[in-house]
This record gives sequence, structure tokens and C-alpha cells, in this order.
Amino acid sequence: MKPTPLSGFPELLPAQRVVEQHVLDTLRRTFELHGFASVETRSVEPLSQLLRKGEIDKEVYLLQRLQAQLTDGPAAGSSAGAPADDALGLHFDLTVPFARYVLEHAGQLEFPFRRYQIQKVWRGERPQEGRYREFSQADIDVIGRQDLAIHHDVEVAQVMAEALAALPLPPARLQVNNRKLIEGFYRGIGAPDPAAVMRAIDKLDKLPADVVIVSLTDEVGLSQRQSQLCLQLAEIRGADLSFVDRIAALGVSDPLLEEGVAELVAVIEGCSSITGQVRVEADLRIARGLDYYTGTVFETRLDCFQRLGSVCSGGRYESLASDGKATYPGVGISLGVSRLLVPLLQRGVLSGSRSVPSAVLVAVATEAARGTAQRTAQALRARAIPCEVAAQAHKWGKQIRAAERRGIPFVWFPVPDQPDPLVGQVKDIRSGEQVDAHADRWWPPEADRWPTVDFDPVQENRS
Amino acid sequence: MKPTPLSGFPELLPAQRVVEQHVLDTLRRTFELHGFASVETRSVEPLSQLLRKGEIDKEVYLLQRLQAQLTDGPAAGSSAGAPADDALGLHFDLTVPFARYVLEHAGQLEFPFRRYQIQKVWRGERPQEGRYREFSQADIDVIGRQDLAIHHDVEVAQVMAEALAALPLPPARLQVNNRKLIEGFYRGIGAPDPAAVMRAIDKLDKLPADVVIVSLTDEVGLSQRQSQLCLQLAEIRGADLSFVDRIAALGVSDPLLEEGVAELVAVIEGCSSITGQVRVEADLRIARGLDYYTGTVFETRLDCFQRLGSVCSGGRYESLASDGKATYPGVGISLGVSRLLVPLLQRGVLSGSRSVPSAVLVAVATEAARGTAQRTAQALRARAIPCEVAAQAHKWGKQIRAAERRGIPFVWFPVPDQPDPLVGQVKDIRSGEQVDAHADRWWPPEADRWPTVDFDPVQENRS
Repeated sequence: MKPTPLSGFPELLPAQRVVEQHVLDTLRRTFELHGFASVETRSVEPLSQLLRKGEIDKEVYLLQRLQAQLTDGPAAGSSAGAPADDALGLHFDLTVPFARYVLEHAGQLEFPFRRYQIQKVWRGERPQEGRYREFSQADIDVIGRQDLAIHHDVEVAQVMAEALAALPLPPARLQVNNRKLIEGFYRGIGAPDPAAVMRAIDKLDKLPADVVIVSLTDEVGLSQRQSQLCLQLAEIRGADLSFVDRIAALGVSDPLLEEGVAELVAVIEGCSSITGQVRVEADLRIARGLDYYTGTVFETRLDCFQRLGSVCSGGRYESLASDGKATYPGVGISLGVSRLLVPLLQRGVLSGSRSVPSAVLVAVATEAARGTAQRTAQALRARAIPCEVAAQAHKWGKQIRAAERRGIPFVWFPVPDQPDPLVGQVKDIRSGEQVDAHADRWWPPEADRWPTVDFDPVQENRS
Repeated sequence: MKPTPLSGFPELLPAQRVVEQHVLDTLRRTFELHGFASVETRSVEPLSQLLRKGEIDKEVYLLQRLQAQLTDGPAAGSSAGAPADDALGLHFDLTVPFARYVLEHAGQLEFPFRRYQIQKVWRGERPQEGRYREFSQADIDVIGRQDLAIHHDVEVAQVMAEALAALPLPPARLQVNNRKLIEGFYRGIGAPDPAAVMRAIDKLDKLPADVVIVSLTDEVGLSQRQSQLCLQLAEIRGADLSFVDRIAALGVSDPLLEEGVAELVAVIEGCSSITGQVRVEADLRIARGLDYYTGTVFETRLDCFQRLGSVCSGGRYESLASDGKATYPGVGISLGVSRLLVPLLQRGVLSGSRSVPSAVLVAVATEAARGTAQRTAQALRARAIPCEVAAQAHKWGKQIRAAERRGIPFVWFPVPDQPDPLVGQVKDIRSGEQVDAHADRWWPPEADRWPTVDFDPVQENRS
């Protein structure tokens, strides 16, 4: 019987995995060039840690040892129905475990501490496109002890925008806003409950403006004039600093608003040198209403795949962690690697150029001559040319087809009665061209040496 | 409150993680140069798949959605006490999920299929040194459809030995044996139950020879003479082919024995070119009694850390997977990355040269001049020199100490009243030497550009 896939647990074929590895390598390199250190945390946290925001989060996967269940009955860590606080669950993001890691190792870390973390996370939610039960995230955060300067908000935006710009992706927008700005604005117009305004405005994504206006007047208790101002603020966006004048034109003043505007100016200015497929924009609609951000907030959308939602989000926390002695403010962004890649791989927008690393298949004349083929292969590997030796001494045509099916561009043939075993002939099976070669000296074109990522914008437009 | 570590879930500090990343990069590069494709499987499998060998394996972690437990009561996937077959558990090795992956995707794979897989696995067992509840493994396997030539046994031994030899490790021995050889030998001496002999001989690791002899005579039913022959066979080992004559000298003959000897000769001969810290040896004591191997078997021990047991084991399966239409024989080796590294990191045998990727800290004269520092940093990064800008415009001494604490070797100072912002002075804070430099041209010594791994054999001898 052929096993069936598990919904929500995407798996990649080897050529697709080439794309994922390329993306992860590119992210890592960008993060490290900016001095971000790699951290990996364990995959599990005590339930008390996972639910520390006080919510019963239905997305957590609890762990239980099978043997404990067979012996002690089915409860996870307690004899009652509800799980005990020290029951273990799989982490559902990389922020909660990082906050715990910082507290646990604070004495051995230097602050401000820059870290990146690329790991799997798990959520027991209903699977749908772009939403998985197991998926990879790539997070960067800068965390300070007691305080953390605003220039780190600029830094994480720059680093993530640079990382995204280095990926083979369709055009994307990194949208930035600032909670102080919008809260100050709502305060400035006299809104009784700025948080309620924010939650209503957050729905502009899904609801028409007039419905949101009704919600602002009837539920939040704003006047028609106040509601219109909130809506006008939310409509401001752009890649330059024109948002400053457009806010000023609304005639609202508040010290927190001014602070927020100055912070947003710093981030947008700081990202003005980013080029490529990623545009960094101020977008005053972005609020990330459900999260605990206190200043800068980020979201990122692909122009052609709006329905994927934000693939890369984050912001500033006044207190990412606290141990009674110190508070640790932080700012970070989390890229949903699987959320971004899996749909692009499934549509064929991104693909790997071959399913194996090998640039060369070394053909085998007879089983007795396998040793010669292996010596040739080792000579190529010694110069960092990935290769494999044919599995069987079939006829040449069959060995060439074996290479073809794997996408291997070159086949190396031995030359009979040759005193030097490293002398051969190498055939480019795409062009059919065959040339004399020596395994200590022959070079493939650099673009053929390792598998590459193919980006197909035609597929992109079609979807 | 400072969180306390969870026993069995090791976590690394950033400088230790440098070592782990170096090791994983080295493994990956070696595997890919040999044409092994990267595969990652999901972390969970249905319980029926995890327990397909028919044993109730007490080491499995079952998963349950917290919300399901709160709603439906505490059973994992069933209303009775025992979990349902479709309950999900975390994989406890990479072989079971790989076998499932091969069956699921067989139509899209090319055989023989070479894959490497570097992932975390989980076991709910009692933690102790070198045994963890969450740990990383690096597996290589070659899998065929219907058949798989013996030269692939040689191949996986060569590739793993080469990978180990490329790591910063104390001396190790990759020990090879062959199940056909020992089973054929036991059959040749007339042992009624060769498997029982193997299980008894497998205990030579822990029990003295005379106790094993008693077990062979009293429990397995061998004569004194037969038991002595089994023991003499188990004592044969060596890096050359002398084992062939030593087996012959025992005067036992059997066709399966001959076949096993020929296969073992092929593997030992094929690995004769491996140099460095890894010796490949025939060791006729190795049996891997609890696993389902049918030919070649492998174990690996560090000379100085015998009590870690085998850190890298594997062998040949006649049928790694089967779907009714086809059988998939395989041969592979699994390296216990955490098992190997965590004790060496804890003892300080291995350490990272610094806790951040940055080779340079760019100092900041005043907050107003941060932009200049950032331009300098970007110029360095554009030439792949990792760097960070100082977090605050403290006095020079304080900025130098910030670099020192992170192990950053160079500090870059701006030069006042300089028209070109990329002109500066760079100080090697180890020697104190300070020189004029330009951010578009200055190069650190190549050994300082990225963090490196320090190997301390003194620590090794002390432990």
C-alpha cells in the first residue's frame, strides 16, 4: 500500500528541496553578514510557558510518552482531564522559546543580542493553503537589557528587506507602521478606547470601509468626523516620507503621535537604499491588532499572491521577556518560510534545476572497471565538483538516460587502453558535445556545478 | 524567575552553535559532493507506521491537540485508553520516515536513490549523558528498487568515513562487520539457532568472555568447542584484509560465510584510501543484534570516549520498504550529531572562536554619525565581511570592550573631518595594532573572517 500524505504536513521532493536549501542559505548568509548569531531552541516548552499570555491556545500540540499513556492512563502529565502546567507542548512560534532562552541564558549572553533562528514550528490548526500544521520559520530579533535604541527597529527592517531582496521571489512589499503613531492619533482625536479603534481598523483588510465606519460609530462610540479621520489615516501609504505631511494635514496633534511619526520616519529612511524586488513602504493601515507590539509593526505581502496574507511580520515589544530583575525589550521579524515557498513550489513558480547535487555521472564500462570510475569521481570531488558513479555497467545509452532523468548535465566516459585512469571524455548531454578531458583539470561551467533555482514568472502570472 | 533547563533537551549557546553549524555544513558538503540529495520528512508519523515492526515502542512521543483534549477528553485520537493507529507521534529515527517517504513518492524518485537527511528526532526515554529526548541525526542511505549492488555498501562506508574524517574530532574507528559472515559461520559450526548466538556475542561489550561462554553453552546449547570458535571469531579485527586468513584458520566452511567474507573484503578494501582521524576496520564482534540488518553492519567509536558507545551506526536492510509491488533494499549509516557533539562541547574539547558572526565592530563617534558607520558596515558586507555597528556611541574604550566580550577581532574607527566616509582606522584588538583602512579595500586575514572551530585535545585527554 502506498502511504497517503498527511494534510497540513507538506513534504518536498528532492528538486524542490534544492530551492528550500537555497532560500535558507541565502537568509542565513544575510543574517550573519549583519552579525546575527544562530540560535536553535528545543522544540518543546512547558505548557505554562506556551500559554503565558493567559490564553488557552487551541493550536498547541501536547506531547505524551506512549508508554506513560499505556501505563498511567491517557492524561498528558496529570490524572485529571486538563493537562498539568509542566506538560510539554511543541512550540507554535519562535518568539516564546527565544524569550525563555534569553532568560535562561541571560548571564552568558551579550546585550543587545542579535539572533536569527530557523526552525520548524507546529500548530494544531485546520490546514488550508499557506497554513500548515508543521512549517519552517526564519526569525531575526534584537533584544536589549532594560532598553533598546530605536535604530534597531531600522536594523531589523533593513536586514529582512535585504534578505528578501536576495531571494528568487516575485515582487513584494514590506509594510511598516507604528503603534505609537496610530494610538497617539486616536488619542489626539479624543477616542475613548484607542485599542478598540485599532481592532476595528484592522478589519479593513476583510470588510468594506463603510462597514468599518459603522463599527467605529456604533460599537467604538466615535463621531462620524472621528471615524472619517481614522479611515483617512489608514489610507495613507507610500515608499517615501510624504506620509508625514499627509498626517499633518489631518490636523491632529498628540505627543505619542509625534513620537510614532519620528520612529516611522527613521525606519522608512533607513530602508531607502533597499533595491530589487522588495519595496519598503509606510502603510498606516497595518496594526497587527492581536499581538503585543508597542511601536514599529511590520507585514509583508507578495504583489501577485495577496491571498497568502502576510508572509513576514513582526514588530517591537516593550518587554519580550522579564525575570523580575530586568526587562528585555526586543524588535524582530518572522518570515514564514514554508508559507512563502510551498505555494510557489506547488505552482512551479520556483523549481530546482535537478534532483541530485551531482554535476557529473561517471559512466562505468564494466564492473571490473568500477575502481577506475571511482578514482575519476574522487579526483573531481577533490576539486569540489559533485558527482556520482553509475550504479550499473549498462550500455552507454542507458547510463546517459539515467543521468538525464536526474537532470545531471555531464556524463564522463573512460577512454579504453589509456595508461592514465583520469583521462576520459566528457559529454554535455544537453548539447551532445563530447570533449577530451582529464579529471584533475576539467571544469564544468560554474552555473552547472551545483543545482540552481529556476524562477518562472510566467507560471506566476498564470496563477 | 529564571527558567530551568529541561533534562534531555540540550540547548547550545551561540559560540557552541558555531561548532554545530560547522559540523552540519561539513557533513552536507561531503554528502552532496558524493551526489546524495537532501530530503526532509515531516516530524510526525501515524502511530501504525512508527510501530510497524510490531513492537510497542515505549520511546514514542504521542501528539495531541490541546483543544481536542480540553473538548473531547484526554485520549490521543481514540476514546479508549489505548491510542488509535492514526494518532500521530514524533519520529524516533530517520529510517522509518524515510522508508515511508520512498513508498509515498516512489513514482517521482530515481533509483538507486541516494539521500541524506539531517533532522531532529525524539525519544521519550530516560535522559543520560549522550542520550537525549530531542537530538539531531545525520543519515545517509542508498535505496534501490528490487535490488541494490554491494558496491553501495562500500559507498556509504566511504562517504561517512570521509565525512567523519573532515570533522574536528578526536580519533575514531568505523567498525565494519557482515551479518552473512557471522550467521554463515554459526551455521557452519552447526549452531542450532544462529540468531541466539548473535545476541549472546553482542553482549561481549558489557560482559566478560567467560560469562558469554556460559550463556552460549547453557542457554544457546552450543558445545564448549563451538562456543570457543564463536568467541575466536568475535576477537578478529583489523584495518587490513588479514581477517580473511584468520577466519580461514578457524576451519569453518559455509556458502553464506564465504559470501559475507567477500562483502566485508569489498568494504574494507574500498575504504583503504580514507586517511585522517578515522580508521575503518573489520571488527567481527559487531552484530547490531537488535536491528534488522541482513549484510554489512557498521558502528563507530571515539577512542577517548568509549563510554559514549557507537556514535554512528547502520547497515544493509534486505527490505527497507515494500509496497506489495516492489521491495526496496537499502544500506545506510546514521550519525548521532547531538550524541557526538554535546559531550565534546560540554567538556570544552570543541568550542567556537566567538559568539557572533561579526569580524568587525564599526564604532560610532556620535549618534549623529551613525549613518557613516552604517555605510562603512554595508561596504564591508558587500565584500562578504560580516560586521555590526556599535549599539551606542559610548567612549572608544567601552566600544572596544563590547567587541572583546563578543570575541570580535577588529574595531573600525571613523577618522574625523574626512571627506570620504569609508576611510577609517581598523584596530586588531588582540595585538592592539591600528592601521589606516578603506572600507572598499581592507581585508581581514581569511582565518578571522568567519567564526572558526577550536579543537582542544588537552581537554580531551583530561576528561
